[in-house]
Amino acid sequence: MFTKVLVANRGEIAVRIIRSLQELGIQTVAIYSTADRDGLHVQLADEAVCVGPAQPQESYLNMQNIIAAAVGVGAQAIHPGYGFLAENAEFANLCTQCGLTFIGPRATTIDLMGNKEHARQEMRQNGIPVVPGSKGRITTLGVAQQAASELGYPIMLKAIAGGGGKGIRRVESEQELERVFTRAQKEALLSFGDQGMYLEKILTGVRHIEVQVFADHQGNQVYFPERDCSVQRNKQKLVEESPAPGLTSAERKYLGRLALRVMDVIAYTNTGTIEFLMDQDHHFYFIEMNTRLQVEHTVTEMITGIDLVKEQVRVAAGLPLSFTQDDIQAHGHAIECRINAEDPTHDFRPATGQVTMVHLPAGNLGVRIDTALYPGDVVTPFYDSLIAKVIAQGSDREEARAKAQRLVNELVVRGVTTNQALQQAILADPLFVGGQATITTLEKEILPAWKGTDM
Amino acid sequence: MFTKVLVANRGEIAVRIIRSLQELGIQTVAIYSTADRDGLHVQLADEAVCVGPAQPQESYLNMQNIIAAAVGVGAQAIHPGYGFLAENAEFANLCTQCGLTFIGPRATTIDLMGNKEHARQEMRQNGIPVVPGSKGRITTLGVAQQAASELGYPIMLKAIAGGGGKGIRRVESEQELERVFTRAQKEALLSFGDQGMYLEKILTGVRHIEVQVFADHQGNQVYFPERDCSVQRNKQKLVEESPAPGLTSAERKYLGRLALRVMDVIAYTNTGTIEFLMDQDHHFYFIEMNTRLQVEHTVTEMITGIDLVKEQVRVAAGLPLSFTQDDIQAHGHAIECRINAEDPTHDFRPATGQVTMVHLPAGNLGVRIDTALYPGDVVTPFYDSLIAKVIAQGSDREEARAKAQRLVNELVVRGVTTNQALQQAILADPLFVGGQATITTLEKEILPAWKGTDM
Repeated sequence: MFTKVLVANRGEIAVRIIRSLQELGIQTVAIYSTADRDGLHVQLADEAVCVGPAQPQESYLNMQNIIAAAVGVGAQAIHPGYGFLAENAEFANLCTQCGLTFIGPRATTIDLMGNKEHARQEMRQNGIPVVPGSKGRITTLGVAQQAASELGYPIMLKAIAGGGGKGIRRVESEQELERVFTRAQKEALLSFGDQGMYLEKILTGVRHIEVQVFADHQGNQVYFPERDCSVQRNKQKLVEESPAPGLTSAERKYLGRLALRVMDVIAYTNTGTIEFLMDQDHHFYFIEMNTRLQVEHTVTEMITGIDLVKEQVRVAAGLPLSFTQDDIQAHGHAIECRINAEDPTHDFRPATGQVTMVHLPAGNLGVRIDTALYPGDVVTPFYDSLIAKVIAQGSDREEARAKAQRLVNELVVRGVTTNQALQQAILADPLFVGGQATITTLEKEILPAWKGTDM
Repeated sequence: MFTKVLVANRGEIAVRIIRSLQELGIQTVAIYSTADRDGLHVQLADEAVCVGPAQPQESYLNMQNIIAAAVGVGAQAIHPGYGFLAENAEFANLCTQCGLTFIGPRATTIDLMGNKEHARQEMRQNGIPVVPGSKGRITTLGVAQQAASELGYPIMLKAIAGGGGKGIRRVESEQELERVFTRAQKEALLSFGDQGMYLEKILTGVRHIEVQVFADHQGNQVYFPERDCSVQRNKQKLVEESPAPGLTSAERKYLGRLALRVMDVIAYTNTGTIEFLMDQDHHFYFIEMNTRLQVEHTVTEMITGIDLVKEQVRVAAGLPLSFTQDDIQAHGHAIECRINAEDPTHDFRPATGQVTMVHLPAGNLGVRIDTALYPGDVVTPFYDSLIAKVIAQGSDREEARAKAQRLVNELVVRGVTTNQALQQAILADPLFVGGQATITTLEKEILPAWKGTDM
């Protein structure tokens, strides 16, 4: 087992990792930018090394400085957390080259899954369902009509060379496809220099369902109860929960087996999360894999009682998984609310300021608040707006939801604007209460209603 | 179910109860003395009523004012917490007379178990083991010798009318008994006006083991995994854990059945805790029953996932227990450390002051910190010195212990002296680490060693 580990991150996730390392009896090394000199992660770690100025590129993304810090203090391993260098294959490689263990999967896996289009191709070729679409490059209306009738209308017509939302149009019927196809091809040629098109099925009532997996270097693989992260704004998750409401146990097993097949395809090691879309008929479609710890790993920990960071460290050190698939049992339900330093009443612009008071409702059963906030802490504009994760676990979903409400009501953060009021609105929304939120519910239903009353 | 409940307490337990009531959707009413105007329990409750000046007798023990407050605000029930009026049969009766539900057992049970000597007699008569002793009043050396040889030396010779530690002597052998018996009788006669004596077995290597029980009004009874509260000073518990280290599953079952038999004897309802001494041969002896929620109920909640306060409220409202004996499973191990405002380096004198800063290490898995502390809070001399309960749960005892250490190290309370350093010494002590602490370990081993190094 390692005796000293460097945590290449900041904020709540650095604090969370340092705490688990301390419980394992491992010496901890924090890194910090000049803007984070007084960060809680710096205060809690046994040692701390400044790796550069505030700009992430020059500090938390500064691979040379971070590796030099790790080597300098005699750390044997680096935990990257999430974000920053967590999914950077070059960094993982650099660690290995410098004799450091990168606590995560192999660099080649990070690389493969990092290219989202390649990842989807790889999965499709291995029989993992992805969002249905036409195969190959379409250049004639006839082939497009044939593919569309196989997929079923409405469909999404996309330029194969497109990107950034450009050259995408929704098509409702064969008549409409006939009308727009040639024009879309011309636009694609003008925009991307390629008139090749493809079609994708439009899914309705879509929920974001994901499965965290774990594999050791001895060939043992497990999956965890699925999470539902459908409450999103601009593809950013705001509320996550586990298990997903309304799934049958057969669907859970199918999903778990699907996740294990994905792991097999890429010979995965350590932890990662496989993300799926689920349509209203509960069909699942692979969208991508995150080859790292995720923000919302906490809800999985709360219902399984397994510390995923400790396990990451053990597995990275070469130990076999400390539990089997049968040991992973879901106890009740857990919900996480992300508290962001942002102003939902002003287009979610990031908020900054000095925190003058913090009241964490840390008592009672099934409560967890992961944060690096403390009175006097300064929220700067340089980093992610996530400042606290409020997690509630209960014997069932409704108890977890009522507890989450109580926690978000009781939490006090003074000195910086947060999205607490929006979280209250989400937790009280009938669609959320009923476990029916889809990936558009927050933007199309909750936000407009909330803005109507609270702004 | 009740729609409004008054919490007749203060500090961490009032906060803890209010939080569970809020999650049940019940309106909460706090009471407070003039010294607690700004108490966290007052801030969190929906309503708050001042019941008198700082002195407990005139406020938190002022039955008339508390009942009047409850009736005045339209509460249907009163939760007494622990301490104050929690084991006051008169108060429980008064509640009933005024049409209020007392959230606890019947007044007659409180009364019976409140008289500790009567309680022991009742148990002995019903075949529950108590600390072995002679039967009835002994007035002659011959009878004393006969009884002593049955119990086995050493024995404790006590005046039957004695109290407060007076007239008690340890006797090692038959020769010594012969030598001291007449003198002891004379002393007893002089001190208490009664020369009657009795003998009690001296137990060695004694641990404090207790079993929390729960019964509804429908006749359902359950017991929880036992707790070990051997780390005590002046009979005050400082560290509690569950399960007790080193018990076999057969011993656990025996203890559970014993607890259920005690409940049968007194037809118990709601929750309570049956306290036993366990000698070095793992024999159990009933000592007393607490007819209320205990400070250390938290460790039971952490390993079973059951909210005992919510269940108290449900059962008091007439609902059946929401779980069966089979539903009660121990997940891992939990340890609670009591953080007291006191100075262990100056004979544990109570500490007071204004809290200038609080850092609660509220993150990560298996962590719970029950407290009413907040920055600006004033710790006054009027009430119990317990200001925070730090609870750690882990997959096994060692993980829980390492986590408790990490939490006690990380916790920051500025402005008032606490026993944090002593808690660190306890958690690191080899006897505690080995799960071998007895009820004398803290006073005879840990404290002297710690004073030698830290004072």
